[in-house]
Amino acid sequence: MIDAVSFENGTLGYLDQRFLPLKEEYIRTQDYRQAIEAIKTLAVRGAPLIGIVAGYTVVLGLNSYNGNKEAFPSYFDSLIDEVEASRPTAVNLFFATARMKEVYDAHFASNSLEELFARMLAAAKKIHADEIVNCDNMARHGVELIHQDLAETLKTKKLTVLTHCNTGTLATGGSGTALGVIKHAWKEGLIEKVITAESRPLLQGLRLTAWELEKENIPFLSISDSSSAFLMQKGMINFGIVGADRIAANGDTANKIGTFAHAVSASVYNIPYYIAAPVSTIDITIDDGSQIPIEERSADELRTIFGTQVATPSTPVLNYAFDVTPNQYIRGIVTDKKAVVGSYSEELRTLFD
Amino acid sequence: MIDAVSFENGTLGYLDQRFLPLKEEYIRTQDYRQAIEAIKTLAVRGAPLIGIVAGYTVVLGLNSYNGNKEAFPSYFDSLIDEVEASRPTAVNLFFATARMKEVYDAHFASNSLEELFARMLAAAKKIHADEIVNCDNMARHGVELIHQDLAETLKTKKLTVLTHCNTGTLATGGSGTALGVIKHAWKEGLIEKVITAESRPLLQGLRLTAWELEKENIPFLSISDSSSAFLMQKGMINFGIVGADRIAANGDTANKIGTFAHAVSASVYNIPYYIAAPVSTIDITIDDGSQIPIEERSADELRTIFGTQVATPSTPVLNYAFDVTPNQYIRGIVTDKKAVVGSYSEELRTLFD
Repeated sequence: MIDAVSFENGTLGYLDQRFLPLKEEYIRTQDYRQAIEAIKTLAVRGAPLIGIVAGYTVVLGLNSYNGNKEAFPSYFDSLIDEVEASRPTAVNLFFATARMKEVYDAHFASNSLEELFARMLAAAKKIHADEIVNCDNMARHGVELIHQDLAETLKTKKLTVLTHCNTGTLATGGSGTALGVIKHAWKEGLIEKVITAESRPLLQGLRLTAWELEKENIPFLSISDSSSAFLMQKGMINFGIVGADRIAANGDTANKIGTFAHAVSASVYNIPYYIAAPVSTIDITIDDGSQIPIEERSADELRTIFGTQVATPSTPVLNYAFDVTPNQYIRGIVTDKKAVVGSYSEELRTLFD
Repeated sequence: MIDAVSFENGTLGYLDQRFLPLKEEYIRTQDYRQAIEAIKTLAVRGAPLIGIVAGYTVVLGLNSYNGNKEAFPSYFDSLIDEVEASRPTAVNLFFATARMKEVYDAHFASNSLEELFARMLAAAKKIHADEIVNCDNMARHGVELIHQDLAETLKTKKLTVLTHCNTGTLATGGSGTALGVIKHAWKEGLIEKVITAESRPLLQGLRLTAWELEKENIPFLSISDSSSAFLMQKGMINFGIVGADRIAANGDTANKIGTFAHAVSASVYNIPYYIAAPVSTIDITIDDGSQIPIEERSADELRTIFGTQVATPSTPVLNYAFDVTPNQYIRGIVTDKKAVVGSYSEELRTLFD
């Protein structure tokens, strides 16, 4: 198992992902400010993983408190402020601090600091444990769906699966969303190999997914993103599965740029293409994908690679970080509650009943 | 005009493309061995451009000959051998040496060396001039086709065009194939801007096409290859045009990996997608694309970028350098003789009558 994050004996452990795959640097720290730096500098990344680390960071902050109970509320407020300022756009970070604040509100008055801190540690561990359980549930539902949809193919051979970006342990702290499904399907003997698209501009597929698959001894091949269409034409891909950043009520899915390009080719060759994401990714208040704002990121993400300049600094760039895959290109949405197929507008709503 | 290659006063001039776009290094040389090195080291690249430089390289070799007429045949043979060994897979290089050998065969016996060398210089200049004329003819036919196919859109606005890899002056010595069409269409006021896909793994789009467009003052945006599908979904691309490495008798076209991915998305959104290539690219002896061998290139093209390691040396990679776009995805094939639309199997054959 990849040790993306851990917490034992008051010590936070994490893998510094900035240097992957060329260097595996595991950090152990009891200093909450170092943990905040890790979030700030993207040493840890991936929405769920940031949430987990944020919870543990609050715990580290508590452990370094040496004042009395009266002075604690103002210390706690500024600690939470500091953690929340580390990456203000990361929603899961705020989920985590909100849960810690709930524990504080419910238990500060009636408990000793020692008891309060123990409850907060338990809450942080629960955030982590929940992510692991979510991943395992997605994996279970995903594997069932594969069994069902690809039964014919599975009669004669194992499957080759396409994935994009990184949706594994490095992103979630659990087995992963899409990559979690793939890992479980591989363990059950359904998968021959994984095709991992490199995911320009930041190459999470080539760097991180490849690294995870190598660690897990799962056979794989890295490709340039634009190769997937040709591999599908040649019959070399049996299905695709990717993660999601945000899913609208009708199933339209925003995810890392390139997700839709694979989906278009898959539809032309009638190759099943799935999304895997926890229910928390579904924004039921948004009717369709047209209402999802798509972030444009810095031109330098294309113009430089790992600090190496590849284009002139004046080269104009259009760098959408995400794209939207309309629901008709998606064969199924695998969540931690169940795998949803058919009419997403009706089915996704039932997850919130 | 970009000075990709020139020949004046017995001196070959070329732009060393290895350092583009970060450094524009123009080389002037009278040393044929330096010219051979330029071909070997990819300082000059692009099939037609290699052919042009090969012709001039033979001329440089002649100019440095200081023996008598009797000793010349063996010198000439070894000169041709040396030039042909510089890049043995480049077909245009052999077209060029074959033309020089024809001149030799026809004129050696009956002419002085001085007269022979003058004829060979003329032959080399003709190779260069022919490429320029070919490009201009493609451009003319291409612009006509755009006027015809996109007349409705042009009533209300200028066009945004997608292209891939580099097919311009840097590849051809003329205005280009696909990029030549784009440049001419822009000069005629049909084009608002160019979207240039970066073309992983070697980034010819981001490095070379962007550089050419900047030199020509044509507005453009560089994108990651996998963005094109999303831009088409958003209605941001009016047509696409790309080059070809080899075209089968039925119109199936092998070109830089990623060409087919754009074509699939274009077909879904009913966006015209054209090929531009000289008639010499059409291999009428090959029925369809399945018979075109597709080169798999070194894994390190993905694993390292400009010498910077981005993946572990053990990362397995599948690196098809080209893909095949089936004819039904191609709205028209623009050649130097005419623009071919409709039934390629019938129409392409007429180009050889």
